Amino acid sequence: MAAKSTLDNVITLAKRRGFVFQAGEIYGGTRSAWDYGPLGVELKENIRNEWWKTFVRGREDMVGLDSSVILPRAVWEASGHVATFTDPLVECLSCHTRLRQDHLLEAFEDKHGKAPENGMADINCPKCGNKGQWTEPQNFSGLMKTYLGPVDNEEGLHYLRPETAQGIFVNFNNVVTAARKRPPFGIGQIGKAFRNEITPGNFIFRTREFEQMEIEYFVHPDDAQQHFDTWVEDCWNWFVDLGINPDNMRKFDVPEDERAHYSDGTIDLEYNFGFQGNAWGELMGVANRTNYDLGVHNEHSNAKLEYFDQGTGERYVPYVIEPSFGLTRAMMAFLVDSYVEDEAPNTKGGVDKRTVLKLDPRLAPVKAAVLPLSKKEELTPTAEKLAAELRKNWNIDYDTSGAIGRRYRRQDEIGTPFCITVDFDTLEDQAVTIRERDTMNQERVALDQVKSYLASKLVG
Amino acid sequence: MAAKSTLDNVITLAKRRGFVFQAGEIYGGTRSAWDYGPLGVELKENIRNEWWKTFVRGREDMVGLDSSVILPRAVWEASGHVATFTDPLVECLSCHTRLRQDHLLEAFEDKHGKAPENGMADINCPKCGNKGQWTEPQNFSGLMKTYLGPVDNEEGLHYLRPETAQGIFVNFNNVVTAARKRPPFGIGQIGKAFRNEITPGNFIFRTREFEQMEIEYFVHPDDAQQHFDTWVEDCWNWFVDLGINPDNMRKFDVPEDERAHYSDGTIDLEYNFGFQGNAWGELMGVANRTNYDLGVHNEHSNAKLEYFDQGTGERYVPYVIEPSFGLTRAMMAFLVDSYVEDEAPNTKGGVDKRTVLKLDPRLAPVKAAVLPLSKKEELTPTAEKLAAELRKNWNIDYDTSGAIGRRYRRQDEIGTPFCITVDFDTLEDQAVTIRERDTMNQERVALDQVKSYLASKLVG
Repeated sequence: MAAKSTLDNVITLAKRRGFVFQAGEIYGGTRSAWDYGPLGVELKENIRNEWWKTFVRGREDMVGLDSSVILPRAVWEASGHVATFTDPLVECLSCHTRLRQDHLLEAFEDKHGKAPENGMADINCPKCGNKGQWTEPQNFSGLMKTYLGPVDNEEGLHYLRPETAQGIFVNFNNVVTAARKRPPFGIGQIGKAFRNEITPGNFIFRTREFEQMEIEYFVHPDDAQQHFDTWVEDCWNWFVDLGINPDNMRKFDVPEDERAHYSDGTIDLEYNFGFQGNAWGELMGVANRTNYDLGVHNEHSNAKLEYFDQGTGERYVPYVIEPSFGLTRAMMAFLVDSYVEDEAPNTKGGVDKRTVLKLDPRLAPVKAAVLPLSKKEELTPTAEKLAAELRKNWNIDYDTSGAIGRRYRRQDEIGTPFCITVDFDTLEDQAVTIRERDTMNQERVALDQVKSYLASKLVG
Repeated sequence: MAAKSTLDNVITLAKRRGFVFQAGEIYGGTRSAWDYGPLGVELKENIRNEWWKTFVRGREDMVGLDSSVILPRAVWEASGHVATFTDPLVECLSCHTRLRQDHLLEAFEDKHGKAPENGMADINCPKCGNKGQWTEPQNFSGLMKTYLGPVDNEEGLHYLRPETAQGIFVNFNNVVTAARKRPPFGIGQIGKAFRNEITPGNFIFRTREFEQMEIEYFVHPDDAQQHFDTWVEDCWNWFVDLGINPDNMRKFDVPEDERAHYSDGTIDLEYNFGFQGNAWGELMGVANRTNYDLGVHNEHSNAKLEYFDQGTGERYVPYVIEPSFGLTRAMMAFLVDSYVEDEAPNTKGGVDKRTVLKLDPRLAPVKAAVLPLSKKEELTPTAEKLAAELRKNWNIDYDTSGAIGRRYRRQDEIGTPFCITVDFDTLEDQAVTIRERDTMNQERVALDQVKSYLASKLVG
């Protein structure tokens, strides 16, 4: 039997420790979406905050927005999504499983190193094994429908957004006026999007319900390429700054026939997730959407989404550079990249295997764990008081259960940067032992210095 | 003409300054949802963070969760929402407008001080004015449908969640195991919910797409009432601590026939929004959901959602106390409550009217504005450097446009607690003038002390 891959280990750990649960598990579950447990929601929130801090709040040329999931249908008609946001669907004539044709062809190529000579005639059904018996491909819309109002008719038909971007485009004039911005400037948004994927899969990588972190950056057409290049670098650097090993990332210049309908150029950042077949997956993409989106809305609505430069007297429809991130894909990459198995000394003078998530302290879901050495009553008030004090600023664990080494292991595998042990000496010297996750070094720190100690260490 | 109400003024300000935009405005807009602009998204985010800090991260007995919008349909069948989450819909026989019967009856009672003697026969259509001509009421489902998979059939039928709560209930065992929690403990969640309201309205108060902040607090059945009472107080205090005038809040003990199907007792906190007719609206509610939800999932699934107390040997299905908040309702209350019109001195020795949002500094969307007194080049590097430095920690405005008084007014009306003026003396004394929003007091602060000055003031 092959050794379990890092990805397998991460998925097992994530489920066991409550980062990620299967959605609706007690009713048989679904692959459409996942639920984020107590640790997952904190990790996800920390990624979200770092992104917002870096790309929105921390930049003078950026503002935020939070637009609706359900926009008027006309938005998606204008944007081209109703007409062109489709995938080619084929059905196995034998077992009637429906699959994406492009995914079947890619899987064949990954396995054999070349495209099938006879097209679909060479492809086996991954479900029943039958070979080459497929319906002609049909275009299948990736938009999820819903109905507003009392009757499910054409009038009430609406779509759940497949990208947050359009909510930004249709608010272009609103933001320019209210926030008094001029190109180059950008609008950032974090929110859910929904796509009716035929084949969701690979854990939280491809789901029908997911979270995007998107920037639409508006520039003068002449400056588009320069801003495009800068954004690719800024996005790369964001991942590296938060701990992703650059050897596990690569840039992929998406060829014209694989780009979205609006893009004049796309570079994806891919991460080595370790999937079976092709190990790499798209982490985020930077697209040059040109003036396509503002242009189609100008055609389809009465608005004039454009910019008048009072300095030069020029009136133009800005080009848009779009860095688009998947929040849960980013989370998956941070988990895989930080997963390490190494060794820790045990009390018998030997070593034990340990699992560690070497997450950047800014991302770690629990910042510190307070561990009274014994359950004896003398230690409880001091330990509880310390935990309560630290909890005002950070997410703090409090664990009294089991040997101290076992409690360290429990914190190591969820990436807690610091374990704070309250022992019997604490009652004498008013100090605690703080152990750092990666080096396992221990330091004695005065009780009244713990807060500032952590504050200085829990930054990037 | 009647004077504009505070509510009207707040709505006008919110639209003009980019707190809230009409969703899909360039396509005629919708009342189903609203978009949150650069200031709105920061205010909303600050409310969200304060809530999470107070009720989840800051409490030892709470953990967080983020479950999916689209859960298996079986969840909503078990929970009773498919069968009972309905509103009574009537249609005007003259103009065919569809309206909620209970809303029409309430409006009549608000206006006349008593219920209509002849029922619907006394009610005029608010659209066409025709009296008493209505269809019989029909039950209309508040659940929004969508379809997963390639065909819109029964198999693919799913619902968008009308409350985040069920995602918590179905994960009860997962959280107990992964987070090692025992009652009394709670799970908090913030996320979107969707309800097919017949009559959305009152600005961001009633929308079809909205954000909830929900806690499901699991307790021993014997302790339910005590925890219920404590939660009502904790929720009340949260609003007061963040600046809501308690005179504008009241508790409403919801009578049995108006409660949700799962509730054995509900107390709403209502806020005096200043709506026409009945000025008060529900801000949040605390419900005693008993063991209803865990119980129905135990009946409909193979799971046993229950708790075994190893200390007492007792096995029981916990009762649930649910404090459920509307995020955007809270935002609307904070805006209305902080809106003040007062006077500020002008340069001519007189006074000008000013509009101020006296938001708690923790909620204010912009924490400080850096204002170089003149656009002259000498001041720019110092002012820009200061703004960039502060932006690492907070959302900061930088405004060079117009007289200083006008710039103060611009910041006052969006609630910015501090305006920092960089003037020509700054080049000499390396200090700036910091003006506080509410008192308009000014202090000279050394440039290298600005950061710690703000840090000490921007807390609760």
